[in-house]
Amino acid sequence: MSGAVPAGPITKIGPEISALARGAAILGTGGGGDPHIGRLLAEATVREHGPVPLVQLADVPDDAVVVGAAMMGAPTVMVEKVPSATQFAHAVRVLTGRLGITPTHIACIEAGGVNSTTPIVAAAELGLPLIDGDAMGRAFPEVQMVLPTLYGHAAAPMSVTDEKGNSIVLDALDNHWAERLARTATIEMGCSSSTAQYVMSGAQIKEAYVPGTLSLCVRLGEAVQAAREANEDPVAAAAAMLGGRILLAGKVTDVERRTKTGFARGTARVGGTGRDTGREAVLHFQNEHLLVEVDGRVETTAPDLIIVLDAVTGEPVTTEATRYGARVRIVTAPADPRWHSPEAHRLAGPAYFGYDTAPVLFDGSVASGS
Amino acid sequence: MSGAVPAGPITKIGPEISALARGAAILGTGGGGDPHIGRLLAEATVREHGPVPLVQLADVPDDAVVVGAAMMGAPTVMVEKVPSATQFAHAVRVLTGRLGITPTHIACIEAGGVNSTTPIVAAAELGLPLIDGDAMGRAFPEVQMVLPTLYGHAAAPMSVTDEKGNSIVLDALDNHWAERLARTATIEMGCSSSTAQYVMSGAQIKEAYVPGTLSLCVRLGEAVQAAREANEDPVAAAAAMLGGRILLAGKVTDVERRTKTGFARGTARVGGTGRDTGREAVLHFQNEHLLVEVDGRVETTAPDLIIVLDAVTGEPVTTEATRYGARVRIVTAPADPRWHSPEAHRLAGPAYFGYDTAPVLFDGSVASGS
Repeated sequence: MSGAVPAGPITKIGPEISALARGAAILGTGGGGDPHIGRLLAEATVREHGPVPLVQLADVPDDAVVVGAAMMGAPTVMVEKVPSATQFAHAVRVLTGRLGITPTHIACIEAGGVNSTTPIVAAAELGLPLIDGDAMGRAFPEVQMVLPTLYGHAAAPMSVTDEKGNSIVLDALDNHWAERLARTATIEMGCSSSTAQYVMSGAQIKEAYVPGTLSLCVRLGEAVQAAREANEDPVAAAAAMLGGRILLAGKVTDVERRTKTGFARGTARVGGTGRDTGREAVLHFQNEHLLVEVDGRVETTAPDLIIVLDAVTGEPVTTEATRYGARVRIVTAPADPRWHSPEAHRLAGPAYFGYDTAPVLFDGSVASGS
Repeated sequence: MSGAVPAGPITKIGPEISALARGAAILGTGGGGDPHIGRLLAEATVREHGPVPLVQLADVPDDAVVVGAAMMGAPTVMVEKVPSATQFAHAVRVLTGRLGITPTHIACIEAGGVNSTTPIVAAAELGLPLIDGDAMGRAFPEVQMVLPTLYGHAAAPMSVTDEKGNSIVLDALDNHWAERLARTATIEMGCSSSTAQYVMSGAQIKEAYVPGTLSLCVRLGEAVQAAREANEDPVAAAAAMLGGRILLAGKVTDVERRTKTGFARGTARVGGTGRDTGREAVLHFQNEHLLVEVDGRVETTAPDLIIVLDAVTGEPVTTEATRYGARVRIVTAPADPRWHSPEAHRLAGPAYFGYDTAPVLFDGSVASGS
């Protein structure tokens, strides 16, 4: 890994958007949408409104009113139905207007190509600071799959809005119901929507959020870039920064996908090359990569991270952009340790996604006690 | 028709609920749910809170804040998932609370077994007067199918709530979008929901509503009862009060139904008996009866009324309660004349429902100019 990358948190997001979007798409584990679209939107908004102040979790006042901003829907649709820059702020205004509250900070729900930049756009439009953290430390496909759920915080009241002028504000029995109601509205709106969700106090967010995620995304994006420019290995740089391992290098030999109930589901086969010749990995995804097998053995499952990077450039490859013949390397890395309680495994482990296996950690060991 | 039935509007709804539910189920043309369930709920609520004052359209102040209360969903589901009395008032509170408005009157959206009594329950719980009128003069299956749509009034902001604690408040591009978003939430909530919709001023409602619908329902219900008690013909009494005609008497020989995208759709065949022996009627329904053929000729379509009554008692037969072997008479009657503009026909004529025919009036004549 190149020593040219500065360490530590950053204080505002401006020129860092490009690195941030790349790093977030790496943490996004194939989901979270096309980082290029998110980057373009955020860069245009920051050009207009100036850089967005980034606030460390420890510096958020306990009485802050924090609103999460995120897109919802199938990335396969987002690529064709590009969101407008104003609709993220609109989703926040619809929610806070209906609740009669004044937001003080915008928060990121997940690290992903689009949803790392969505809150930047909303914060810039609204003139609010952004919190340096996220609710997952990665990307997951459903509303309830966040650490705040494990702390008992509610996703709803939550707004779901589209670009045509439709919006809903929903209240839900629990976060699974928030997911159901928001998903069904999103599908009706054309399979993508802008949402505001998880209104939390500063005190709550300090406890329940993953700290420093946006800074990490910037540093990760910079590390990949720096390694490439120094003729070092960008995939190794990313894996090292995340404390992960390179599972397999190979070529995509088959992709099977379908957009179903608002998700992009499918599998991709990667035939090993070089030292991995003769081995085969199968990636199972549902927006994100959720399970990877090598030669029929489950090597890693959600909640740990399964990351597919371009073998040479280290650029993240989203599940919807995975193409036959692409040369990739598969990296696995640990999730936030709070994702490894039995309750967290029920929320976002392989069984929830319909895979008949116990959770397997990034290093190939089977999770204990779940 | 019996002379024992008093004429003119009534001023409060208390003991009249039974007659009202029967009359509304007649105007409900087979849809709008089981009048028995609606009646029981309204009677229990009025026992607890006292009779609900009924206000004539002409007496509503122009600056009144009027909120429509209605259930949404498939009647086939409502029969099994009986709504609770408090959830209609809850739907109104969710909407007005979010909008920061104070309702002065509750309004009925449609004449139907459940939705004529839903607003009584809401008004009683909220301690508000009820408007003597409705938005259709009959029942129709979709949110946008009301006269206020023809006057440019918006269904949304609209609340959609369930008995579990889930709710949404939606804003929509137009009333067709309100229908789409409310329907999809209703389906997710288990195919039935309580809603508050069409917030209108007194001035707007005076222009766009059908006056006197609830009084008419009471009088119609009383007329059927009185004719039965006087050994007169209750079906003839109902047809006369509505200015309609008896199309055919017979026996149900076949019913085909399916619950699809939240609606109860299907057809029922009625083989003529007595003077109608040898003739056959086919009723096409989608919650409501929308088209009736006799011997292959279209005799009447929506927006005019197609009413199925028990041949002997004159009790209305809902589409979901239509059973093989039942002896029925089919009555057709005119809708509010505002339902016969080309725009109204596009909103709720046979073509909208997927039937390949021009609108046919209750007397069998083809509508001109549409």
